Amino acid sequence: MASEKPVLYSYFRSSCSWRVRIALALKGISYDLVPVNLIKDGGQQFSAEFKALNPMQQVPALKIDGITLSQSLAIINYLEETHPNPRLLPQDPKKRAQVRMIADHIVSGIQPLQNLSVLKQMGDKKMEWAQNCITSGFQALEQILQQTAGRYCVGDEVSMADLCLVPQVANAERFKVDMGPYPTISRINKALLELEAFKISHPSRQPDTPAELRA
Amino acid sequence: MASEKPVLYSYFRSSCSWRVRIALALKGISYDLVPVNLIKDGGQQFSAEFKALNPMQQVPALKIDGITLSQSLAIINYLEETHPNPRLLPQDPKKRAQVRMIADHIVSGIQPLQNLSVLKQMGDKKMEWAQNCITSGFQALEQILQQTAGRYCVGDEVSMADLCLVPQVANAERFKVDMGPYPTISRINKALLELEAFKISHPSRQPDTPAELRA
Repeated sequence: MASEKPVLYSYFRSSCSWRVRIALALKGISYDLVPVNLIKDGGQQFSAEFKALNPMQQVPALKIDGITLSQSLAIINYLEETHPNPRLLPQDPKKRAQVRMIADHIVSGIQPLQNLSVLKQMGDKKMEWAQNCITSGFQALEQILQQTAGRYCVGDEVSMADLCLVPQVANAERFKVDMGPYPTISRINKALLELEAFKISHPSRQPDTPAELRA
Repeated sequence: MASEKPVLYSYFRSSCSWRVRIALALKGISYDLVPVNLIKDGGQQFSAEFKALNPMQQVPALKIDGITLSQSLAIINYLEETHPNPRLLPQDPKKRAQVRMIADHIVSGIQPLQNLSVLKQMGDKKMEWAQNCITSGFQALEQILQQTAGRYCVGDEVSMADLCLVPQVANAERFKVDMGPYPTISRINKALLELEAFKISHPSRQPDTPAELRA
């Protein structure tokens, strides 16, 4: 089992899926991708077949080494432990804690609030709601990054925090959030998007990217 | 700095604060507690003083070893790395991944959706909204635990997943969620509540617990 190629269940526009695609790319792990369309047929993640695979009915899910994992950071931590190079957590415990704090702030504090399932409940207020969640999260993030950042979120090494930052900025742009007040976030995002692993994992370059959104 | 006693900023009823209180208790780390009342004065977490300490304007926050950390799992991971005994992550990477998957499912997939800031927006639909979020999260969790659980969430050792489970079940009870369909969650919750670390960290036994809610 352990030698089979991992299978990633992914949706091109899912920011949580993108985090994992970046990790796989950075670590040079080749994988097969199975697209799960979160919109089509009322959401393919709700099919009985997918539910059997991942009871959370969400992407990403990764079949690897004979198990199926869900939750982007749990998957990324597993990849970090089983494929330690290049590392996505600094060696110093305090810096590791800062990486995790920033990642968790995005993964628990921002993204879930502007997730598809929440936005569905918001009707006409959808856009305003998403903008408020992201704005309030980015205000805190900008302040934190001013303490922790070097070239990237924490110092000059790419870390788990960066894997969360870039997809969240893409969400912000999709919801037309004014990025003017967040110069540090914007600068780091731009530097990261120049890296090959962030480019090839981009939503505009996935097998399930619709033709009109392709790079 | 490193030898000063840690300071935990906590609210008795915050489920995220409770997670950290359990970790501190399990690892036998003594600390000073500063209560932050999330309701009083429009929310003490929004004060300029607290914002300077934690730009995320949330509890828990932990001052420790000369830094201030926020985000419950980031704090717990830091404690795990600096105070490894007793361990809160299994040694086997696959089991560690399962622990993180369950913890993240609660921390990112359930709790943020029934958080105070979201509920404020829901007006009359507050109770129904919270119940739906928890119910849908618990359905997935029950199914996952049937694969992973021993005495506790993953096997027979207390892990980070358990630190997230118990406070989330308390939230479910507060929102009057019918726990009948979740026998595995209920059984594990009961076993954990018998442990001293879960008892002394309980919301009913905190310095800021109002008299009428005290155990």
